[in-house]
Amino acid sequence: MSYFRRNIEHMPPYVPGEQPPPGAKVIKLNTNENPYPPSPKAMKVLREFDPELLRLYSDPMSRRFCQAVAKLHGVPVDRILAGNGSDDLLSMIVLACAEPGRKVVYPMPSYVLYRTLAQMQEAEIVEVPYDDDYGLPVDALVAAAGAVTFVCTPNSPSGTVAPVEQLAKIAGNVPGVLVIDEAYVDFADSDAMGLTRKHDNVIVLRTLSKGYSLAGLRLGYGVADPKLLATLIKVKDSYPVDSIACAVGAAAVEDQAYRKRCVAKVKASRRKLSADLWKLGFKVWPSQSNFLLARPPEGDAERIYQGLKAKGILVRYFKEPRLDDKLRITVGTDKQNAALVQSTRELLA
Amino acid sequence: MSYFRRNIEHMPPYVPGEQPPPGAKVIKLNTNENPYPPSPKAMKVLREFDPELLRLYSDPMSRRFCQAVAKLHGVPVDRILAGNGSDDLLSMIVLACAEPGRKVVYPMPSYVLYRTLAQMQEAEIVEVPYDDDYGLPVDALVAAAGAVTFVCTPNSPSGTVAPVEQLAKIAGNVPGVLVIDEAYVDFADSDAMGLTRKHDNVIVLRTLSKGYSLAGLRLGYGVADPKLLATLIKVKDSYPVDSIACAVGAAAVEDQAYRKRCVAKVKASRRKLSADLWKLGFKVWPSQSNFLLARPPEGDAERIYQGLKAKGILVRYFKEPRLDDKLRITVGTDKQNAALVQSTRELLA
Repeated sequence: MSYFRRNIEHMPPYVPGEQPPPGAKVIKLNTNENPYPPSPKAMKVLREFDPELLRLYSDPMSRRFCQAVAKLHGVPVDRILAGNGSDDLLSMIVLACAEPGRKVVYPMPSYVLYRTLAQMQEAEIVEVPYDDDYGLPVDALVAAAGAVTFVCTPNSPSGTVAPVEQLAKIAGNVPGVLVIDEAYVDFADSDAMGLTRKHDNVIVLRTLSKGYSLAGLRLGYGVADPKLLATLIKVKDSYPVDSIACAVGAAAVEDQAYRKRCVAKVKASRRKLSADLWKLGFKVWPSQSNFLLARPPEGDAERIYQGLKAKGILVRYFKEPRLDDKLRITVGTDKQNAALVQSTRELLA
Repeated sequence: MSYFRRNIEHMPPYVPGEQPPPGAKVIKLNTNENPYPPSPKAMKVLREFDPELLRLYSDPMSRRFCQAVAKLHGVPVDRILAGNGSDDLLSMIVLACAEPGRKVVYPMPSYVLYRTLAQMQEAEIVEVPYDDDYGLPVDALVAAAGAVTFVCTPNSPSGTVAPVEQLAKIAGNVPGVLVIDEAYVDFADSDAMGLTRKHDNVIVLRTLSKGYSLAGLRLGYGVADPKLLATLIKVKDSYPVDSIACAVGAAAVEDQAYRKRCVAKVKASRRKLSADLWKLGFKVWPSQSNFLLARPPEGDAERIYQGLKAKGILVRYFKEPRLDDKLRITVGTDKQNAALVQSTRELLA
């Protein structure tokens, strides 16, 4: 007997983007981190953190953090569930809802983890292709009748947004749970949070990794009907969020003025970077996130990825159908983006 | 169609011990926390933590922490896997190894989470009863032929230790993985770490929650053959451990002198508390952990649990077969223990 389940043995591991060691001299535009530091108010909470709170177990429900989130969205706190990053919430949902005979459905290309999680549960996987403009294939997603349907919006790696009316149509017509993964929504012009009040099968996921510059803290949350959350709570870890993340995350959520200033800077840099890449002959998809999907003029994305890497600039290259001629480039500071554009120009010459 | 899998809908949630809100005036002896603060060297790392590291994703493999652990145990770093608490490692193991038709086996009573995790995977569960002295039922555990066999040692809630020779016999004779859960081993006279070098199916789990006073940080690790870890890595979260836990945990592991001083104090208090409870007429099981399983003279454990709670002292009461006449009491400071003994004496009078 093998020590492991067959599906796990046969499953390829998820490969996250490269994380160079701390202090490495690289321009890191590959994993969609925010180029600006976290809120100073949140960092003050970190520096003054009471060691006594580390001796004790953390709050199983992360109430301090969830209360801050509830206030932000103007909803009761029992509609919020915190996790060790929004990936943790994705895991809970798939574990609670998916198994052989129950379908996991999502448009492709999108966040690769949806597939990995479904494979762990041996769920039937239905991948519906996006068209080349990344319009949401609403009818096909509904027809697939998923136990879980994922829509990432703004979508990674395209940066494009799904209209709320289309998401509402899916929510009202699938037999299972609709997960609206809004990891990048802080950089978008609209969001789908309102659907969680109209549909008891919708959960909206948020993270503090992007808009709040706290990727290293591992903190995310879901907003949904309390009945939906009650079952997720059964499969969650007993203490998923540590006491520091709970306190620091609450302070970050309460400092909306700071978040908005950082987001405004990223959006302005995004416009400039997009224009500069168009000038170099790239096709750039319209992005409402903190990254750009961009196709080099000759489609030789892997060569440019390697060339940039040799010059100390990391961007993301996916060696996959429909993506292997494109790059996903995180929007950095204007200075970082200018270095990227200059190096790319040299590689195209 | 229900939104959820049948087994999840029917599963009772795991109920962790009560966590009173920060600042509550209680003597908390219910969830086996260490009564002494974390290492001052670890807290210095926390206070001086660089915000830039929170902006970036954490290291997917928590190398800084794993290197400290590898040095402590004198093993190569590829034999170490970190998790968001040792509960996270338990989840990875059950997810990788258990499913319908593959058995999960453990002696009872033990840590309740083993059952919950097996239920999530719909694995066949074999619970082998301990005898009243908590001797390990070796032959029955081997005969059950688990895909996963759990042995918690020192065991919760009994505090008793399984001899290494017995664990070796199980390791050599089961077809699957033997998980030796050493969450409480810092307070014991021996450990089973050596078995990970002799058996490729053994994983030893450790946590920083108990001996290192870092329950609120959520950090644990497993030690095993790299081939075993390679498959667990496939099912782990991309970034299970946050950057603060990685750095603070490494500093805590490197401060063994401090850990040993705290552990020595807990052990001395354990001897005194055990003697005091015997004097009150309790039966107390021989404990090598930081808690005591104790049966009150009349077996009216629930009444004493409630009475202590009314006096502001929390201990753990399990309303389950074979445990509902006993209390699990965390060893606190001598002052806390004296208050517990005094209040218990009043309740028995």
